[in-house]
Amino acid sequence: MGNCLFCRIVKGELPSDKVFENEEILAFHDINPVAPVHVLVIPKKHIASAMEIGEEDRTLVGGIHLAIREVARLTGVAGDGFRIVTNIGRHGQQTVPHLHYHVIGGRQLEWRF
Amino acid sequence: MGNCLFCRIVKGELPSDKVFENEEILAFHDINPVAPVHVLVIPKKHIASAMEIGEEDRTLVGGIHLAIREVARLTGVAGDGFRIVTNIGRHGQQTVPHLHYHVIGGRQLEWRF
Repeated sequence: MGNCLFCRIVKGELPSDKVFENEEILAFHDINPVAPVHVLVIPKKHIASAMEIGEEDRTLVGGIHLAIREVARLTGVAGDGFRIVTNIGRHGQQTVPHLHYHVIGGRQLEWRF
Repeated sequence: MGNCLFCRIVKGELPSDKVFENEEILAFHDINPVAPVHVLVIPKKHIASAMEIGEEDRTLVGGIHLAIREVARLTGVAGDGFRIVTNIGRHGQQTVPHLHYHVIGGRQLEWRF
């Protein structure tokens, strides 16, 4: 996946403002934040979207959620709350075809789409 | 968790308009839809929110995502895309303290919070 933006970030070919990293997962600040806290949490493995999560990815997806907990603590949103969002395809406005979870918080969020 | 709304739906004490069910997971239409397709996907096990997902829930969370894929196919949003959202706490506007993933689609979604 040589041209995938997030694969290039994982490989260190492109810079990112890292929040958390382990063997399987990377978290970094979104360059176009929609709230005071806006972090992207991605698997290092290339998965095109949540529609491409396979049986073999079960524990990886669980691991992403454990990483999100850690990101929430590190960014100070664990107490007041936050939102986890992942977009799929055109209607969802997915912009990078590599699975990523938006962790959004730091202010009161609205409920509209 | 006798008073939890979603635990009562899981137990059949309260009705729901089911979309998908397996041993671990239940999916049903949201009673206050924000889009033509708006389904809630929940673990039958009581987990208060995504902040309470534990190491032992890794494969369950993966299973929820496999169920979401199935829900997307069943509701016809897999092709055009959709959004997966889970809210935590006050800033996220979490309304029921039982982990649930909103599957939202059926029209072009906006990107604002």
